[in-house]
Amino acid sequence: MIKAIFFDLDDSLFDSTKLAEKARRSAIKAILDLGLTLEYDEEKCYEILLEVIDEFGSNYSYHFDQLIKRIDGISKLYSSEIGEFLAIKGMIPPPKMIVQAAVIAYHNIKFTEIKPFDDVIPFFNDVKKFDKNLKICIITDGLPDKQYEKILRLKIHKYLNDIIISDEVGVRKPNPKLYLIALERFDIKPEESIYIGDHYEKDIVPAKKIGMHTVLIHRKGKYDRKFHGKEGPDFEIDSLDQLLEIIKKLNKN
Amino acid sequence: MIKAIFFDLDDSLFDSTKLAEKARRSAIKAILDLGLTLEYDEEKCYEILLEVIDEFGSNYSYHFDQLIKRIDGISKLYSSEIGEFLAIKGMIPPPKMIVQAAVIAYHNIKFTEIKPFDDVIPFFNDVKKFDKNLKICIITDGLPDKQYEKILRLKIHKYLNDIIISDEVGVRKPNPKLYLIALERFDIKPEESIYIGDHYEKDIVPAKKIGMHTVLIHRKGKYDRKFHGKEGPDFEIDSLDQLLEIIKKLNKN
Repeated sequence: MIKAIFFDLDDSLFDSTKLAEKARRSAIKAILDLGLTLEYDEEKCYEILLEVIDEFGSNYSYHFDQLIKRIDGISKLYSSEIGEFLAIKGMIPPPKMIVQAAVIAYHNIKFTEIKPFDDVIPFFNDVKKFDKNLKICIITDGLPDKQYEKILRLKIHKYLNDIIISDEVGVRKPNPKLYLIALERFDIKPEESIYIGDHYEKDIVPAKKIGMHTVLIHRKGKYDRKFHGKEGPDFEIDSLDQLLEIIKKLNKN
Repeated sequence: MIKAIFFDLDDSLFDSTKLAEKARRSAIKAILDLGLTLEYDEEKCYEILLEVIDEFGSNYSYHFDQLIKRIDGISKLYSSEIGEFLAIKGMIPPPKMIVQAAVIAYHNIKFTEIKPFDDVIPFFNDVKKFDKNLKICIITDGLPDKQYEKILRLKIHKYLNDIIISDEVGVRKPNPKLYLIALERFDIKPEESIYIGDHYEKDIVPAKKIGMHTVLIHRKGKYDRKFHGKEGPDFEIDSLDQLLEIIKKLNKN
């Protein structure tokens, strides 16, 4: 009997990757829109930004500060003839203002365009109708403040019975202990639970190791990989519409 | 001959005080909307929040973290019967999530409702038509990132020739040195400049001391105080509509 459903958050319940790319591109456009004469176009800047994110990590707070240090035209502004020319015409934007223009544009996208995948809210409603005692919980990596913000902006918090953020409990994916902590919180056995995520190594492997039922969801993200019944997750789905049937099937066994 | 106009930012070019109150009240409503059973209503929470701001300063980053420590019902949630009751019904919101709900609501107001006073953009346009060489500059206290963000969101940056933020230059209002730094940047004499602000002690006294022409603008804010020609600012206005005439008058002398 399934008593709890555990979900990964990013790229499982909303399209985190696509949203991030859109927000980052919007940030770069905002920098370019400040009217600086730069040799780099959006594509080149985006490429540099990805380098920065790769080097400093995705949860680093100063991506755009680093980015503008790498855009030739900007660093030259403050000591060059271009700078003097701009100073006559108006203001040379201070570096912190350029960064803020990027941050504003980035947040405008991130805050207003975040939304759950289409199948999420219908699934939550259906599953609560199916069994109102079934617990729904999120298990996620990431900075607690940001993860709570995402959950609130996605407006899914009212469906949740718990949120487990690795940085709060001190154990990160793919450590199976994180999944054991989740089970302990509800006082249930692994076989009474099901875990759904998009990332095989981080989500499925550790959950399976401790005996949870595992579901790999294909969201067409960068880690997407199909197993077709070979050694892998217990189930593979393309939409949460298929999940309730899986739960019903497991309940019969 | 007036060569540069210096402006204070908060409560002179936009209604910072009213915006902050609205954002803070919205944050409190968001906490109350989480469905916790609290004994405090909006007014009581707002009063506590003002206490926190008073104690920790307006630029402290964790007002809402402190606020929820002082709301009785919230701190009790995590060890009490109320907490257990909520846990059965759904989730006890973790403190960080309560704070994030407040922060989101606060930012929603601050970011979307910020706008210049009605007379600001018309004045900037008029003054640039009157004399395109006249420099416009902001002199402001506050955290650089936040001040740049306000200027960008107000969409007034394209009118500005410089922005002087006290925490960036290392000198704060009402130190007259801050105003001397502004004059040096444009290489002009105090009598070639005019300074407009809403706060007599912080804005007018130091600017007047070094010989700038001073204009106190009445925005009906908390520091508003009329002098009516007695010892005080050189000019008092209720709207920037009156400022161009003052500049013309000064240019004739």
